[in-house]
Amino acid sequence: MEELLKFAPRPTGAGAMFQMLRDGQPRTRADLAAATGQARSTIAARIDLLMSAGLIVPAGEATSTGGRPPATFAFNPRAKVVLAVDLGAQHARIALTDLASTVLAEADAPLAIAEGPDVVLSWVAEQGEKLLAEADRERGDLAGIGVGLPGPVEHSTGHPIMPPIMPAWDHVDTPGILRKHFDVPVLVDNDVNIMALGEHRAAWASVDNVLFVKVATGIGSGIIADGALRRGAQGSAGDLGHVAVPGAEEVPCRCGNVGCLEAIASGQAVADKLASEGLDAHRGVDVVALVRGGDLRASAAVRQAGRDIGSVLAACVSMLNPSVIVIGGILADAGEHLIAGIREVVYRRSLPLATQHLRIVTSQTRGEAGVLGASAMVVDHVLSAAAIDALAGA
Amino acid sequence: MEELLKFAPRPTGAGAMFQMLRDGQPRTRADLAAATGQARSTIAARIDLLMSAGLIVPAGEATSTGGRPPATFAFNPRAKVVLAVDLGAQHARIALTDLASTVLAEADAPLAIAEGPDVVLSWVAEQGEKLLAEADRERGDLAGIGVGLPGPVEHSTGHPIMPPIMPAWDHVDTPGILRKHFDVPVLVDNDVNIMALGEHRAAWASVDNVLFVKVATGIGSGIIADGALRRGAQGSAGDLGHVAVPGAEEVPCRCGNVGCLEAIASGQAVADKLASEGLDAHRGVDVVALVRGGDLRASAAVRQAGRDIGSVLAACVSMLNPSVIVIGGILADAGEHLIAGIREVVYRRSLPLATQHLRIVTSQTRGEAGVLGASAMVVDHVLSAAAIDALAGA
Repeated sequence: MEELLKFAPRPTGAGAMFQMLRDGQPRTRADLAAATGQARSTIAARIDLLMSAGLIVPAGEATSTGGRPPATFAFNPRAKVVLAVDLGAQHARIALTDLASTVLAEADAPLAIAEGPDVVLSWVAEQGEKLLAEADRERGDLAGIGVGLPGPVEHSTGHPIMPPIMPAWDHVDTPGILRKHFDVPVLVDNDVNIMALGEHRAAWASVDNVLFVKVATGIGSGIIADGALRRGAQGSAGDLGHVAVPGAEEVPCRCGNVGCLEAIASGQAVADKLASEGLDAHRGVDVVALVRGGDLRASAAVRQAGRDIGSVLAACVSMLNPSVIVIGGILADAGEHLIAGIREVVYRRSLPLATQHLRIVTSQTRGEAGVLGASAMVVDHVLSAAAIDALAGA
Repeated sequence: MEELLKFAPRPTGAGAMFQMLRDGQPRTRADLAAATGQARSTIAARIDLLMSAGLIVPAGEATSTGGRPPATFAFNPRAKVVLAVDLGAQHARIALTDLASTVLAEADAPLAIAEGPDVVLSWVAEQGEKLLAEADRERGDLAGIGVGLPGPVEHSTGHPIMPPIMPAWDHVDTPGILRKHFDVPVLVDNDVNIMALGEHRAAWASVDNVLFVKVATGIGSGIIADGALRRGAQGSAGDLGHVAVPGAEEVPCRCGNVGCLEAIASGQAVADKLASEGLDAHRGVDVVALVRGGDLRASAAVRQAGRDIGSVLAACVSMLNPSVIVIGGILADAGEHLIAGIREVVYRRSLPLATQHLRIVTSQTRGEAGVLGASAMVVDHVLSAAAIDALAGA
């Protein structure tokens, strides 16, 4: 017991050793022994095991400090592949990635989610086969499938739950249907959650507390806290589209309530407002085109949407204390107007302790966020420390 | 690699085995082998190790299924003790607990935090010695000290950061000062965070997503998400006292902003409002006394405070999707008025998916929440799976 209280805790299994290697850097047996505090013989046995599973490969020799130069080993992300699927309201994208979430092949299509699970998931299966062939990989190389859906998803089962814009998908066993085509683990989540995961891994991997906000037809967010996605009890965490905006009580929302952020500041809401002023705007993409064309009414409307979003994000900053807020979705493409409005209100309205190190930035992964996140979700599952420990029987 | 994708991941170290035993139930070697999937020889070695550390003890014999009845083993929470300290604005409480956070001895005093670190931490050291003597334990039995402070705390260092009501504590090395008296790990956190932890462990241990709200002189909250306390980037997560309340823009707050929840609905704010109407109310405790005495203006004011708190909690429900919201703090003692106002707004204003299983309840641990949480924080640290794995050198 005495020793216990003196040592800094440090995970020591084969899985923990493998997680170190996942950064792609080659390491010698001595490096790994020093980093894990394990005996050289233990490290050697674990390297043999991970080599035989194909998960690590020899990576040349390190610089010698005298005598025979020691061999190095590195993660082999090509050992397996992942199908990453981002299904939006009107658009579908699918990518085949390796275990480092590098895209090997990709396809997309103007496919409406409202076509229902049969049509949409058949498309996924068909495109999945095509991408495997294109990348010259076999079905046996597939480690898993990750899917993002534009609605609430019970993550533990992968079932959509009462999804407003895709009623035909309610409680549909999405993983079960895809497993008829590919007998691998299938993980499903809400599209904004996988975008948050994709953006976090690709652009902010070293930051533990990130809030990703999508401003598109609707408004939603994904919460990274202490380094992991937080989904809440029913998987609906991050749903800021239906938070009330102060002073907007007269605006009805499609959810049945009034004054919801989505009814005031989404791409659709801004387009509707501009259309009512006689401008040619039907959807968020039209708003972006107007702003880019120099229309001042459109810029002003986007900036006001930013302020309204900022008034809700100020509360999120107090509650979640993130280091970074990333703004994605189509309306983020309207230059600096959206983010300027957001910053204006958040920095005025939140406490100094929570904003002194806070950054508010636009998405770096843009349209790729969803497939990158879907891939990362699957890779994390099949290569988790616990999964590797189980493989090692440690 | 193939096996990897078929097995459900399962942590397998000595630490994971010990976490199973922390529920206090006696188990045989065979139980533990079955539950962990480990070889009987591995289990036997780990039991010997934990026995020699005093962390588990023999717990009699299981019912035999023929032959010699097998021995059982159980967690020994008396192996070590913890000092748990809850320092409020005007009141201090200290408890000596075992490793199951059961209180063995306790003391409290009307001690103002504004007296500063020298006075307050000397009191802690002195009372700590007294409680050890009272419980007949030695200094060497102390596993650690947990402290809650009424202000923002950088949890990694244990330093208070710009704490508004305790300016003399800014960046004071609280753990360092206490370690001069007791050479053990000292963990420090915000008082509402440790209350959230204490309430979670004592009353909602099986619920992964809980929001604890303290309504006292000020208003704050602690967030349990995916089973653990989430502190955010600077440790200020859960700070809902300074979120803006819609329609209250004319009310100034001591933070320099306007319309903050704390300026409108805290125990102090309600007392000030009632005093301005000629009632004898100086602090939250006076409000509770008036409500209990049947004063209708006081009940109505508390109910309105509940509605205002509810308008902010509705946003928290959308963002965090908790299963349970627990209301604690002095104003929660004013019967059902506060919680009725909260429920009224939250259930009207949040989406059905997030509220269909949501419970809003009053604290069960009340004044004990802080010391229970401070104890749990220390126990989690010194008995973590990683700490036990390190002890085992696995």
